[in-house]
Amino acid sequence: MRAVIPYKKAGAKSRLSPVLSLEEREEFVELMLNQVIDSLRNAEIEKIDVLSPSVYGLEDMTKARVLLDEDDLNEALNRYLAGSKEPVLIVMADLPLLSPAHIKGICSTEKDVCIVPGKGGGTNALFIKNPSRYRVKYYGSSFLTHCSIATDTGQDFEIYDSFLAGTDIDEPEDLVELLIHGNGSAKEYINRKFRLEVSRGRVGLVPL
Amino acid sequence: MRAVIPYKKAGAKSRLSPVLSLEEREEFVELMLNQVIDSLRNAEIEKIDVLSPSVYGLEDMTKARVLLDEDDLNEALNRYLAGSKEPVLIVMADLPLLSPAHIKGICSTEKDVCIVPGKGGGTNALFIKNPSRYRVKYYGSSFLTHCSIATDTGQDFEIYDSFLAGTDIDEPEDLVELLIHGNGSAKEYINRKFRLEVSRGRVGLVPL
Repeated sequence: MRAVIPYKKAGAKSRLSPVLSLEEREEFVELMLNQVIDSLRNAEIEKIDVLSPSVYGLEDMTKARVLLDEDDLNEALNRYLAGSKEPVLIVMADLPLLSPAHIKGICSTEKDVCIVPGKGGGTNALFIKNPSRYRVKYYGSSFLTHCSIATDTGQDFEIYDSFLAGTDIDEPEDLVELLIHGNGSAKEYINRKFRLEVSRGRVGLVPL
Repeated sequence: MRAVIPYKKAGAKSRLSPVLSLEEREEFVELMLNQVIDSLRNAEIEKIDVLSPSVYGLEDMTKARVLLDEDDLNEALNRYLAGSKEPVLIVMADLPLLSPAHIKGICSTEKDVCIVPGKGGGTNALFIKNPSRYRVKYYGSSFLTHCSIATDTGQDFEIYDSFLAGTDIDEPEDLVELLIHGNGSAKEYINRKFRLEVSRGRVGLVPL
């Protein structure tokens, strides 16, 4: 099997712009990418591809192969899947709470496809045993779409139910989850900039 | 073992007030409560208590025992724990995605305590094998607090990692998760009032 991580550093994570500058967001996504790669390696996945529209931020990448495709995320991933002759794990680059144990759990599914839901209807990871028989459609309610695509192509699927793997970091409130549940360099980066503050039921961020 | 569900119908779920009226919120929390009770019963938990500061909305409750305690949530729960001679599962009433399988998983922990984190640092469920040795402290970052309380009292704990059990319904965006991942009467109630709409990355609600 192989893993592929779609990645784009330039202008990344615009929804974090209320709390992080462009430069900070670009630093932060690089830390998250490296953590995801490390988790994959620690899960003993040897073939790891980073799929990006640009080499920006990947010039010194040695831990994974860099594949460039300027096309849209879905087009690029579907081209990747069509050319794959072994099972593929697609994993998003913004999952610093994803552990090697999660990855092993996802990839040990007995079904044809394993889908890891993210917040707000997204798909955080997708393990596909027969990639040439599957196509992806990210954006919007991709979780439901990915379930339907499996069913429509006669493949059964498992939903991998994890709070931690389900936490993709897109919005300021997601940084709270990273501070509470995370570890490693991405957490430390945010920890140097914010502290947690309790207000009305849930916990919020306060700049340091 | 027994389960206890803290519950307050009057003025419930004020953070949903941007999208649901007071009357709707009170109807909705009652549906969620009943779903949680049904999940507990389907997990073969026979002793179920609803702990409430008022009998309002519980006049006709037949599926669980109703305990009234006008004190604050923490005071009332700690009094409950102090008087319990068997393991206790504390489960919040706003978890319509919690399934019988989750409940069985939580209660089969090999540790002294099992903690189910909710969004934003909360605690969605808490299974305590020795309730007289534990006290709760909800509100704020209760997940971290509940981990510390276990450690400080010499009890080991498991973190139960579930996207679905981790989804407590407090904010309008949480209703999106209910529509995407839920079933049963609470989902149907929301489904009659809203549809999902895709915008900028995540899925939002649109009134019908």
